[in-house]
Order: sequence, then C-alpha cells, then structure tokens
Amino acid sequence: MINGHGDDLYKYKHIVANFSSNVHQNTDNTSLIEHLREVLPICTASYPEPEPYTLQKLLAEHHNVSPDSVVVTNGATEAIYLIAHLFSGKPVKINEPTFSEYRSASEVYQSTITPQASIRWLCNPNNPTGLVQSEDYDDEILVIDRSYEYYSRKVLPKLTLDDKHLYIYSLTKRYKIPGLRIGYILTSPSIATKIRHIRQPWSVNALAIEAGIWIAQHNFPETINRVNLWEETDRLRLALSQIPGIELEDSDTHFMLLKTPKRAQELKEELAQEFGILIRDASNFKTLSPYHIRVATQDRKANDLLVAALKDKLSAF
Amino acid sequence: MINGHGDDLYKYKHIVANFSSNVHQNTDNTSLIEHLREVLPICTASYPEPEPYTLQKLLAEHHNVSPDSVVVTNGATEAIYLIAHLFSGKPVKINEPTFSEYRSASEVYQSTITPQASIRWLCNPNNPTGLVQSEDYDDEILVIDRSYEYYSRKVLPKLTLDDKHLYIYSLTKRYKIPGLRIGYILTSPSIATKIRHIRQPWSVNALAIEAGIWIAQHNFPETINRVNLWEETDRLRLALSQIPGIELEDSDTHFMLLKTPKRAQELKEELAQEFGILIRDASNFKTLSPYHIRVATQDRKANDLLVAALKDKLSAF
Repeated sequence: MINGHGDDLYKYKHIVANFSSNVHQNTDNTSLIEHLREVLPICTASYPEPEPYTLQKLLAEHHNVSPDSVVVTNGATEAIYLIAHLFSGKPVKINEPTFSEYRSASEVYQSTITPQASIRWLCNPNNPTGLVQSEDYDDEILVIDRSYEYYSRKVLPKLTLDDKHLYIYSLTKRYKIPGLRIGYILTSPSIATKIRHIRQPWSVNALAIEAGIWIAQHNFPETINRVNLWEETDRLRLALSQIPGIELEDSDTHFMLLKTPKRAQELKEELAQEFGILIRDASNFKTLSPYHIRVATQDRKANDLLVAALKDKLSAF
Repeated sequence: MINGHGDDLYKYKHIVANFSSNVHQNTDNTSLIEHLREVLPICTASYPEPEPYTLQKLLAEHHNVSPDSVVVTNGATEAIYLIAHLFSGKPVKINEPTFSEYRSASEVYQSTITPQASIRWLCNPNNPTGLVQSEDYDDEILVIDRSYEYYSRKVLPKLTLDDKHLYIYSLTKRYKIPGLRIGYILTSPSIATKIRHIRQPWSVNALAIEAGIWIAQHNFPETINRVNLWEETDRLRLALSQIPGIELEDSDTHFMLLKTPKRAQELKEELAQEFGILIRDASNFKTLSPYHIRVATQDRKANDLLVAALKDKLSAF
C-alpha cells in the first residue's frame, strides 16, 4: 500500500505538533546525526556493502545470536516484503487491526488471507492499538514484528530462533531516523539463508548502514527517558479520557487509539488546518471505524495543544 | 547476486586508486554534498514520501513525459528487481556479457533465460564492455538499462514510451552517490501503474530523494568535463594497448574490458596489495574468460599508476 499511512507530514505546511507517526518527536539523536553529517561525503561516494555484513555481525553480538541469523533490511518494510516473498502463494492469517503492509505485501506475493492459514503475522506491541499480544500460538510459522519493542511497557517473550519464528526489528523509531530506512530480521540461519537468496544487493543505503553501526557500537544508547514518557503518556491519557465523547482504548505503549464522534478524515483536516496539529486518521485500518484516530505521546506542550484542540473541535457533540 | 560485483572497496585498506566501479572518482559533486549535509537532520527525522511523487514530477518535466510514466527506485537495482517481478515466470533473454543482476533478478522471480523468449534485457551502453548496442529489436518487450547514458560517446536512440519499452536510469554514477541509491524507470503509464502495484512503500530513502530533487532543480548540472574525460580515456587506452600481452577491447564509454595473460583474480589481489590499485575482476561476467578485467578511466595520475602497475605485473609474460 502506497497511500494511507501515517506521518504524511510532507503533505502539510505549518504543522507545529506531529502526532501522526509512532516516532516520539522529542527523541535526542544529536550525536548520531552529527556523526552522519561527518561521514556523509565518504559514505555516499562508494557503493554500500551489497549485503550489510558488518552491521549484521554487530547486531548478532547485541542479540547474542549467530550473524547467520541476521538480515539487515531497507527499513522494516523491506523485511515484510522479503518475508511475504519467501511465503509467496501460501495462505496467511493476520491479527487485525494491524499495520497494513502485512496484508499489502502478502497480496503482492499472491498469498490469500484466511483464518485457516498456518502462517501468522503478528505485530507486538501492535500498531495501531499499542497492545502487547501473546506470542503463544501453535501455528507453523509466526512472523512477529517487534518494531515497537522499545516502547513497550510490558516485557516481551524471549526470542526463539528456530524455523518457526521470524522477528522483524526497526531502528527507525527509536533513533528518529525514519527518513534513512533501517531494520532487520532475526530468524534461524536456514530461514535467513532462504531470504538472502531472494534479496537484491545494495538495498540498504550506506548512511543507514553507518547509522546502524554507530548505534550498535554505542551499545544502543537511550534516546528518551522512558520513565518520563510513561508519566507523560498517563497524563495525556487522563486528559483525553476526560473529553466528552472520546472513547480512549487501552494501550501498552506511548501510542493509542481514540474513537471520537467526528469522522476521522474530517477531524484530521480540521486539526491540521486550524491548529497545525497532525494526527493519524486510523479509519483505514481493517476492522476499525470511520471515527478512529491514533496519536502518539509527544512532549507536554504539544500534548496540551492536542487536548485543547480536541476539546474545541468536539465541544459540539 | 550478492557477491562478485565491482567497487568492493569496503573489503580493502590502503586503496589509492579505484578503477573497480564505473564511477569516475574525479566527479565534482561538492554543492550537492553540501546541500545534503545541511538537510540531513530534517530529512532523516520524518518518513520519506511513500512513493517519491515530488521527484517523479520533476524527472517527468526533465524528460518531457507524463509523471505517470516515472517510477523512482532505490537505485537502478530496485528497478531491475521490480521489472523482473512484473515479468515473473516469463522467459527472458539477456545479451551477455552484461550486468549480472538481470539474470539474478530473473532467476529470483522464476523466469527462465532462453534465446526463445520475447522479453529482452539490454544494457546500453553495455556494462562491462562499454559498447553502445542497437535497440532495434522486434521482441515483444525491451528492457533497456541506460544507467551509463551520461558516459556514452555515441548518441542513443530517442525514448519510445509505449508498452514495449522500459528504460532504467541511474543518478548514482553521474553524481558519484552510489552510497545513496537512486534510480528510476521510464515507461508507458500503464506499465508504470503495474509496477506501482507491486512495489513497497518508502523504498527510496529521504536523502536519496532530496539528492534527486536537487539534481533536477539544478537542471542536471555537469559534474565532469566530458571532453577531458574522452581525451584522458584515449590516452589511457593508448598506454594500455602498448603493454605487451594486453588485449584491449573496444568501448564507447570511459570503462573498458582488458584481457591479460594473468588470471584476473590473482592480478586484482596483487594490484590491491602491492600498489593500492583496485580493479574489477570481470571473470564472473557470463561468456568472459578468467583473464578479463574491467577498468574505468580516472584522473591522469591514477591512470599512470595503473599503467605502470600493469606493466610491472605483466612483464614476466
């Protein structure tokens, strides 16, 4: 799916608070960005490693697994498309509502989506709900997207690196570099080998690789204070839940679903035009209603703007 | 194919002259790089356009075609894999020797390679020979990779944007940004639409898009003096042709094939270790011999180093 995703910031002018992606805008990645600016002239002048071996080795050390188990990808999205390609034509099931690319990628590779399938796609914590799900399924294959693990308030199950489990990770959100595109797959060496056989060379650009190497070499430094993030999330949730007409759904992360009395599409445009606030119209997630929106906790000032704007727009209901 | 490509600079230390890729190292892209360093903090912090609409529009203006005819890709390589995906399972033919990814991508998508096919892959000018080929074939489909058009000493046939023709372009070589990954496809709107349906979102990173926009907005500025490049190419060719034992093949560009009496693999390692010179072992191109190497003209000083080193290594033959 090309259209209908969050963080469509590029379409709007004068946005002062961006709640539309699950990236926390207050993330401090200054040292990483400074490093990238320094290496940019060298990095861009030569081809990247056709497959990012160096980074795969470092990520393997971090996760305490074999480098043969790691496949670095052009964002979590390439991971999803490679896995869908690997299972071409095989029926899959998807726990909806969830990130739409599992469905889109499966359809591109001629897989039917049916509850009878033995391959399951699972996002944990789940996007857009923010809920942590059980990974205890007896399906033949479990594809578990852990792009939001860093933002989980619950501890996730330990990794199981066998032929049944494929995990997807993202470095995009935690380090606020969605523009660079960097993610990876962890799985058994035999599944990883099959994925390597169908991948194109140089899919991950040299700066993304460099960012990954920097992150790994700095031992995955903290970029936000998560204690503060949870406190601010609780404060925001309390304020949102007190707005008449809003139904606030449970979440185990800093992003959450809300159902409001106004159509999401309309509310989104009004907030953007009148308040410079960008939210995620969540109505195109399968099983959700035309009234669902998704927001992710930002800093106190932005959150207060959001609450005030929602109060204003929903006062008539 | 992941291994066996040129520009494997990342594997070597102390390289003083790099002849191994078709990028001309003397390319002046200073203003572009300065621009990218400036926009990096902003560019990396948000998702790129899921499909690079803005750049597609600018490229369409440059080529004087409809934006519906342009598909911007993660390097020419994503273009190759998308086209191979589009023709999944259909027999194809390939004019060998040529860039190995046409074969690799076709194999990934279950296409057999046979002279009886009605889809033809063509690289023009051709890599590794540097020769301009006729595009006048009566095949049903022609996929024409024009990644090296800028380096062609002959004028190529005019574009024909119908369902029979798919052209691949690269911005990587001309602007010396192979680390960034940026290319595009030009074809009929109906074929382009089919390609859009099978592509993943966000495959092109935000800095690559930004580079493309800068290039288009600056009207594809010259980055080398091509008159000088041809003069230096002629000088290098003359010097190479006078080394006993070397068979220099014809070329219409700045890169060329040479057959030497020494095995290419061995010669490459010796030149790297003893002289800090990196060449392309071309022996893994289909139909070439174990004695073929490829080099691309660099500046006078580097070219003289290459000639002296080859004389030294081949003097025993």
